[in-house]
Order: sequence, then structure tokens, then C-alpha cells
Amino acid sequence: MSTGGSSARAPRLVVAGVGLIGGSFALAARAAGLVGEIVGVGRTRRNLEEAQRLGIIDRIATDPADAARDADVFLLAAPVGTCASLAAAFRPHAKPDAILTDAGSTKAGLVAALEAAWTSPGLVVGAHPIAGSETSGAGAARAELYRDRPCILTPTPRTDPAALARVRALWEGVGARVTEMDATRHDAILGRVSHVPHLVAYALVLAATEAAVPADELLAWAGAGFRDTTRIAASPPELWRDIAFANADAVLAGLAEFRAALERIEGCVARGDAAGLEAALATAATARRNLAGRGS
Amino acid sequence: MSTGGSSARAPRLVVAGVGLIGGSFALAARAAGLVGEIVGVGRTRRNLEEAQRLGIIDRIATDPADAARDADVFLLAAPVGTCASLAAAFRPHAKPDAILTDAGSTKAGLVAALEAAWTSPGLVVGAHPIAGSETSGAGAARAELYRDRPCILTPTPRTDPAALARVRALWEGVGARVTEMDATRHDAILGRVSHVPHLVAYALVLAATEAAVPADELLAWAGAGFRDTTRIAASPPELWRDIAFANADAVLAGLAEFRAALERIEGCVARGDAAGLEAALATAATARRNLAGRGS
Repeated sequence: MSTGGSSARAPRLVVAGVGLIGGSFALAARAAGLVGEIVGVGRTRRNLEEAQRLGIIDRIATDPADAARDADVFLLAAPVGTCASLAAAFRPHAKPDAILTDAGSTKAGLVAALEAAWTSPGLVVGAHPIAGSETSGAGAARAELYRDRPCILTPTPRTDPAALARVRALWEGVGARVTEMDATRHDAILGRVSHVPHLVAYALVLAATEAAVPADELLAWAGAGFRDTTRIAASPPELWRDIAFANADAVLAGLAEFRAALERIEGCVARGDAAGLEAALATAATARRNLAGRGS
Repeated sequence: MSTGGSSARAPRLVVAGVGLIGGSFALAARAAGLVGEIVGVGRTRRNLEEAQRLGIIDRIATDPADAARDADVFLLAAPVGTCASLAAAFRPHAKPDAILTDAGSTKAGLVAALEAAWTSPGLVVGAHPIAGSETSGAGAARAELYRDRPCILTPTPRTDPAALARVRALWEGVGARVTEMDATRHDAILGRVSHVPHLVAYALVLAATEAAVPADELLAWAGAGFRDTTRIAASPPELWRDIAFANADAVLAGLAEFRAALERIEGCVARGDAAGLEAALATAATARRNLAGRGS
């Protein structure tokens, strides 16, 4: 349909996984005039049709070849466990200079897998926007999701500087504050401030479903504290299953640190150590109040 | 100052602990015309002066005798560990028919201690409004805090029906939805939906301060998930120290249930059991989504 050459038209974007993350990127990129046609790929036909109806994507690709044809940028916003096979499926049909980026919550292993799948590994640029919520699906997408939110890029020694600059411009263009970081460092940090808290929130709700008091009776008395603490436990299980495995080393290390902290608190309660308990709670309260002072 | 007898004037209220909980009750009770003079008692002179300046209390009592003189209702809204000694200090100076109620987050042990301290144990009515937040102090008080929030009353076989009715009328008068419940049942439920989640939130922040990655670097990347999950870890440590000890049996039982759930999740990650992990997360996500459907 394009009348000019590929260098003249606006970049064609493929979004694989048109949910909260991918759909919001598409809406914001279009609003900012960063892209031309947006092609959607996904597991669920109904979600893709909703995305098209909402104007998030222009068309639904029927297969990887159809999606990849003339695409300039691929954004993988699917569960991290499926990203490498998506890249491999697109690659034979993609232009040699097409850029591959992602929005996965884990980076080191995922980026290595994407570099292995993409025949021009320099054109792979790992990205992780720190945004999102427990909502999901194209219906949850909104153009403002990334406004003033952090986005971490994790270039490797192989990353092409021009590709990195182009992906940075896209994320900055949708409003994010972009930082570059080593992928392993990213995983160590996010494992502790995001992945472990998600698993802890799931465990709090799971425990309520299996407690000595019936769950219905328990949850009838859930106040704001329980609701806030467990809000993220409504997140899609398949996403967090993939994240936990993709970042298993940092997740297990973070869980061990968490268990040690909880056992310290529990031990104080069991032993009747009031001073020890107050000291532990005060250390946490001070750190949490300082965090509140930093704003969101 | 009163010109009529004690039966003619509006009830005089003593609030011991004029923070978020006690101060909000005072503001709402006055706004609803439920009480006359409101006398404040507390540990911190500066907080009491702020409460007086904000119109939450009419005067500051200088000692227990001064507070208790001609008082009709005592509301103990101090840390649960201090409530029994406050009751004992007021009792010698209080009128024989004065009612004692509280707003403590634990009930069985506390109410027993209050009944022991009050020479008319039938006039003790345990109460727990399920409201509040991580904020504290008189400056955080607001008249709307209890509007449409649950309040659990825990009468015992000794409780005088007229006293119970009067305390119920006060809590209903400030807007709460009042339920009566056995105190031990209350403690078993709240231990799991409130006390354990608080300790877990404190442990998440405590772990971040002691992780293999420096806390400053970790917390710089804390997103909405971490912030929501740990919001209640900013709560006053001395309150939660007291609550943990006052409800130690249910707290330890709830922590054991939580650890079992977390170990199930952690075990799946460690073993690479994708189906087991997804099933556990899905059980929690379904329960949490159902809870969201119930509204707050």
C-alpha cells in the first residue's frame, strides 16, 4: 500500500502480544507519530479483534510471515517464556535490518535467547518498562501508561549503537524515562523489588485459601491492608510463572533473603522478644517511609 | 461547668490515644452530636496539643483522675499493650456506671484484661473498627474514617446488654457497619487477613534493606507493585509489636500457613515445576479477583 520506498514511509511496527504492555506502547507510539502501520500478533483471536476495534492495531497478522513482511520494528510483549520462539518464527520473513525489542520483566537470559534467534544480533535491544498493573488484555491498554515511568534498556557488547538509539527514541517518545543497565544487574534488582513481592502476594492469598479458617469467612474481613498487599496477586499467572523461571536465580536468592527477614520477625514473636521485634519493624518502617518520600 | 445532672448533659467522652483511630472517632462522634465534652489523654503532649488545636478534643487531661472525673464513656485507642494499664489507672476515679470500650486490633486477651481491670466488667465492650491506614497521629484523623467501614464488637458472657447497645449506637453513629463476633474468632480471622500481612510487608522491606544488592539501588527501582505490597510497612512499629504479641497464637498459626504456601511456590521454582507453579498462582489469582469483585 505504501507508495514510497521503505525508507520514506513511517516505520511499520509489529506488536506480538497486544495486551496492557504491548497495546499501551502501540497507542502511545501512534499518538506520538513514531510509527506507521501497526500489525498485531497474539494467541487469542478475540483479544486481537478487540485491539483492532479499539484502534490499537491496524491489522491482525494471520501468520509469522504475514506479520514480518516489511516490518521495521518488532516489539515482543508476550509472556517471556514465548519470546524466543516468536523471534525465531519472525526471523526468516523479516527484513535484514529489522530491529527486535521486547518489554520483558527479565532480561539476561531472554536477551541472550533473542540474540541467538535473530540473525543480526546487534539489532536486538532488550527493554523493560517499569509500568503495568494487575490488569491485562487489550482493553486495559492506555496511551499514558509509560508517561514518566522508568524504562530500563539492557544493551550487550553486541548491540548496534544505532539500533540502541532508535529503541531509546521509541521509549522516550512514549514518555518513559530511559536508563541503560547491565542485564544481570537488572535481574538481581527486579527479582527483589518486583518478582519476589509478586510471589509473596500470591502466597498470601494462597495461604488464605488454605487456612484453618474458611477462606470465605477470612476474605469477608479483608481490609485495605490485605487488599493493597495482595493487589498484584490478581496478575495473570502465566506471566509470573514465566518470569519466575526466567529469573530463577535472582528470585530464589531474593526469596531466601525474604525468608530470613520473616524468620527474624517470627522468631521475635515466638520468643516474646519485644525489643527485637520493634527494632526489626522500625528498620522496615523507616525504609518504607523514606521510599514514600521519594514519590512514585 | 455542666448545669444539669449527669443524666441531663451529653455524654462526656475520654479518648486515650488521640491518633488516627481515637481522633477520627472523636471528630465523627462530635459531628454526629453523640457526645459532649471530649477529654484527651496520651503519651505525647505535642500530639495532644495538636488535637486540641484541631478541635478534636476540648481539653487535655493532666492525669488519670482529671481525665476520669464525670466521664461517661472511655475509648481506649492506644497501643493494645498499654490498654489494660490505662483502664486500671482510670478505674479508681471513674463513675461506677462508666462504660469502657476500645478500638484494639486484637480482642480475646485484651478484653479479658480490661474486664479484670474494670470493677464493673459488664460495662466493658470490646470493639475493633476495620479502618485506618499507615498514617498516624492526630493530624491524620478525619471524621469520615469509619463511614461504611466494618466494626466488630466482641461481647462476652459478662457484657451488660445496655452497655453493648450503647457502644453499638456510638459506632453506628460514626458511620460504621457493626457486627458482633466471638473474640477468639475475631483474632483467628484478623491474625490472617491483617496481622500476618503486616508482618509480611515489614519483612519485604526489611529484606530489601539487607539484600545482596544495596538497598538504595534496589529501592530506586521500586514500582507500583512493591509500593502497594509494602505500604502498610510504614505503620507505627510499636502498634504492630503490641498486636503481634497480643495475638501471638493466631499470628504464629497464620505465619505457618503463609510459609507453607510460599514454600510450595518456591519449591515449584526451584524444581522447575511449571504446571505446579501456574496452578498455585492461578488459585491465588482467582481468589484475589473474586475479592476485587466484592468491592472494598
